Amino acid sequence: MSAKARLYAIMEKAEEGDRLSRVFDICIVTLIVFNVTMVILETVKGMKEVYGGFVDIFEAVCVLVFTAEYMLRIWCCTADAKFARPIKGRLAFMLTPLAMIDLIAIFPYYVFLLVTVPPNYTLPLRLLRLFRLLKVGRYSHSMRLFGGVIWQKRQELYIVALALMLLLVIVSSLMYFVEHHAQPEAFSSIPKTMWWGIVTLTTVGYGDVFPITPLGKFLGALIAVLGVGMFALPAGILSSGFVEAMQDSDRDHKCPHCGKEIRNPK
Amino acid sequence: MSAKARLYAIMEKAEEGDRLSRVFDICIVTLIVFNVTMVILETVKGMKEVYGGFVDIFEAVCVLVFTAEYMLRIWCCTADAKFARPIKGRLAFMLTPLAMIDLIAIFPYYVFLLVTVPPNYTLPLRLLRLFRLLKVGRYSHSMRLFGGVIWQKRQELYIVALALMLLLVIVSSLMYFVEHHAQPEAFSSIPKTMWWGIVTLTTVGYGDVFPITPLGKFLGALIAVLGVGMFALPAGILSSGFVEAMQDSDRDHKCPHCGKEIRNPK
Amino acid sequence: MSAKARLYAIMEKAEEGDRLSRVFDICIVTLIVFNVTMVILETVKGMKEVYGGFVDIFEAVCVLVFTAEYMLRIWCCTADAKFARPIKGRLAFMLTPLAMIDLIAIFPYYVFLLVTVPPNYTLPLRLLRLFRLLKVGRYSHSMRLFGGVIWQKRQELYIVALALMLLLVIVSSLMYFVEHHAQPEAFSSIPKTMWWGIVTLTTVGYGDVFPITPLGKFLGALIAVLGVGMFALPAGILSSGFVEAMQDSDRDHKCPHCGKEIRNPK
Amino acid sequence: MSAKARLYAIMEKAEEGDRLSRVFDICIVTLIVFNVTMVILETVKGMKEVYGGFVDIFEAVCVLVFTAEYMLRIWCCTADAKFARPIKGRLAFMLTPLAMIDLIAIFPYYVFLLVTVPPNYTLPLRLLRLFRLLKVGRYSHSMRLFGGVIWQKRQELYIVALALMLLLVIVSSLMYFVEHHAQPEAFSSIPKTMWWGIVTLTTVGYGDVFPITPLGKFLGALIAVLGVGMFALPAGILSSGFVEAMQDSDRDHKCPHCGKEIRNPK
Repeated sequence: MSAKARLYAIMEKAEEGDRLSRVFDICIVTLIVFNVTMVILETVKGMKEVYGGFVDIFEAVCVLVFTAEYMLRIWCCTADAKFARPIKGRLAFMLTPLAMIDLIAIFPYYVFLLVTVPPNYTLPLRLLRLFRLLKVGRYSHSMRLFGGVIWQKRQELYIVALALMLLLVIVSSLMYFVEHHAQPEAFSSIPKTMWWGIVTLTTVGYGDVFPITPLGKFLGALIAVLGVGMFALPAGILSSGFVEAMQDSDRDHKCPHCGKEIRNPK
Repeated sequence: MSAKARLYAIMEKAEEGDRLSRVFDICIVTLIVFNVTMVILETVKGMKEVYGGFVDIFEAVCVLVFTAEYMLRIWCCTADAKFARPIKGRLAFMLTPLAMIDLIAIFPYYVFLLVTVPPNYTLPLRLLRLFRLLKVGRYSHSMRLFGGVIWQKRQELYIVALALMLLLVIVSSLMYFVEHHAQPEAFSSIPKTMWWGIVTLTTVGYGDVFPITPLGKFLGALIAVLGVGMFALPAGILSSGFVEAMQDSDRDHKCPHCGKEIRNPK
Repeated sequence: MSAKARLYAIMEKAEEGDRLSRVFDICIVTLIVFNVTMVILETVKGMKEVYGGFVDIFEAVCVLVFTAEYMLRIWCCTADAKFARPIKGRLAFMLTPLAMIDLIAIFPYYVFLLVTVPPNYTLPLRLLRLFRLLKVGRYSHSMRLFGGVIWQKRQELYIVALALMLLLVIVSSLMYFVEHHAQPEAFSSIPKTMWWGIVTLTTVGYGDVFPITPLGKFLGALIAVLGVGMFALPAGILSSGFVEAMQDSDRDHKCPHCGKEIRNPK
Repeated sequence: MSAKARLYAIMEKAEEGDRLSRVFDICIVTLIVFNVTMVILETVKGMKEVYGGFVDIFEAVCVLVFTAEYMLRIWCCTADAKFARPIKGRLAFMLTPLAMIDLIAIFPYYVFLLVTVPPNYTLPLRLLRLFRLLKVGRYSHSMRLFGGVIWQKRQELYIVALALMLLLVIVSSLMYFVEHHAQPEAFSSIPKTMWWGIVTLTTVGYGDVFPITPLGKFLGALIAVLGVGMFALPAGILSSGFVEAMQDSDRDHKCPHCGKEIRNPK
């Protein structure tokens, strides 16, 4: 294997038994976790003042590593048959979602370095660094498993999303009609009543808006009892999808008639 | 096929492979979604003033389309054996729930056009236009699937509804008895205490009413722990019904090796 | 069949095809539902003043019917082999839970009639009439099915109850220790902190008590994420028990090896 | 069996049919439950003043019993092959988690007896006595079953914990960015916004922080609908694990007619 192909193998998800690749993955994930933690803690007032110096150095080191990683990835991506052509292949690679995330994750640092950013854009640019978190998806089996569950249940989730949307519109329109006059501020329009609708149907119930008229309370109670079951459907779908996904990797499936293994009986 | 029969086929739910019918469905659904969105946004103060002209024209166009659709449906419904007779068949068709919804959905526009509506009736009439949303049910596979789940589980839901009603009465009566003296306003009667009961048992918990006496808190805690499991039953029933419904249409119950059917692989 | 035996058959749960018994059941249940609704509505201020006369008459009629029913039950219970002996059998019948409920349900009326009840005891005595609701259990298939589910899952519920108790004690002690100094009123003792614990772990979240210190919030967040899964267990147990109970009456169970029916495979 | 071996058998979890061991277990568990109840009630103001004398005596008796139990355990642990050596074995036994819990549970009493504890350390030391609760784990089948479920599902729970962490960071960062300017106090930093995130996603919804800007509400509603399904996963995992654990011990997988085993009837 050429050095380039070996490097590519290391940087991509670890193969079973490839220890160097595994070590590389763990190092990068650890770095990302620490870096993201720092980005989060930076927003706490007073943090920057005390640990500012360390934070700046650590950020520089991280960006250096991530830049090197990004460069190496672009260089060695031609080892993959899909991106084999020197220019076109590398451009195609750079346009893959994962490579875009890599770029966005280091991008803010260089903007701050090169341009004077207007104060309004400082915070969004800083927060853009949180895209580094998405890099974890490349290495984490858990995240891929999760993404797989959501992808496999996309049809169910889509149907439920439609039904919930419909339910929310009906419920909010009814409530708007009933409570509008008693609370012209909290239930000032149907879109605003939808805030009440979602807060109630997901059972969050902050308590910032709730019906106060007897009819509104009666309707609200009815909606809560009936609607809560509907809004719990995504939870049920994801749960069953997750249980299935975990079982698939564990359980062997056999036909009760011929005894042969069934790969994917779903 | 006669023109009438063809038109009827187009207007009813798209058959597999009938492209014109499918295009018709998508157009109508899109129109409904935009129209309903507008009805909802109209309730936001200031919206009407800015986009009033466009809104009025769009509404007129929509009603025109829906009226034409309604007329055509009545004309060509005789293509169906059920409504074959020219007068009686058409009247029977007009009394079907879906045709009623079609009528209600355009009805308010003509009322506003023909009569001076007293201010008290303006809002209800306007909101009546939201019935257009129910027209989506005619075309949407998701909505029919949902309706099917609820219909199939009607017996379970009915039993649970009875049990929840009973639980609510008992729980609210107990709480009324315990908290009535400490909070004569919030727990002024059993029906009013039921508002607390539902808000607690569905775990919405707005925080507008809650027990304050030690005994009330003890009872409330007990009720919450025991009752929450009961009020989660509709969610569980709908979830399992939905999962079953999705599996029924997806899964082939045949072993890929021997081709025999596998009974009830759940 | 003797008149007594026939009467007993009518008053007990309707056999398949016994129309008279079925009619009797429906009448009594309807009467109970109306009567309980009235007892509930009586607690609403102003109700009594307006409908007082009707309420009193209806109550008298109900008590008369229930008393007659109770008397007849005691008279004809000897038709059952279990209560065959004229005196001892009838006494044994009177001590069964269902007969006790029947007695308690009519008892308050006669107390009010015969004795001057001190004002403190008026409300409890009035509410005692809600025991009439429990009479529904005798006739309702749904209620018996529900009771059956809870009874069948008693072991699971007991285990979970123990675990939740333990969790609650640990969680509340920790929170008490952390938040006690910051909110000496809301978290004044471990029992009082348990109120916070239950309101949080059942996800009701009224918002009357919540941690305000950073450490308290961190601990509270951890507890919420970890504990909510535990407190959802009763809901899961009841749901699965209910689904099983519904399937048991629907589905025939056959052994895949010999094809014979399996009565109760659990 | 030597006296030591018999004592060891009694003190460890009751074998099937060992009545003395069972009685010993029940006595200790009862003592623990009463003692822990007292530790909890002691934190209620006024309790100590009234029942102080009894409390002190009961505490002394409990500590005496627990100390004797601890000593006896150390003495007879050599009956177990694992801890057979007189000194090294006993030291190894003392370092097992259960023995450590036994020690911690009696430790505070002797500290209070021997040293003048500075007021700051009084409360933590007192609460340390709640470790006695963990001693129940040694005897309780329920607690072991629960621990087993969590252990068996550790992989699933770990994956979900990672995904929830990721979701929480993304959701809180977005919300921080959107609401920071409107509510600089409640959404002052990403870690503080995480409090909102957890309170919302677990559907607790205290109502101490919630978005107030239209964009914040829109985002919050989206997050609630999408995220609630994710945060319900631990509940689903624990529920299914618990149901499996209960079925494993209950159900015989044999056809009552032909006696053959039925594989995986789920």
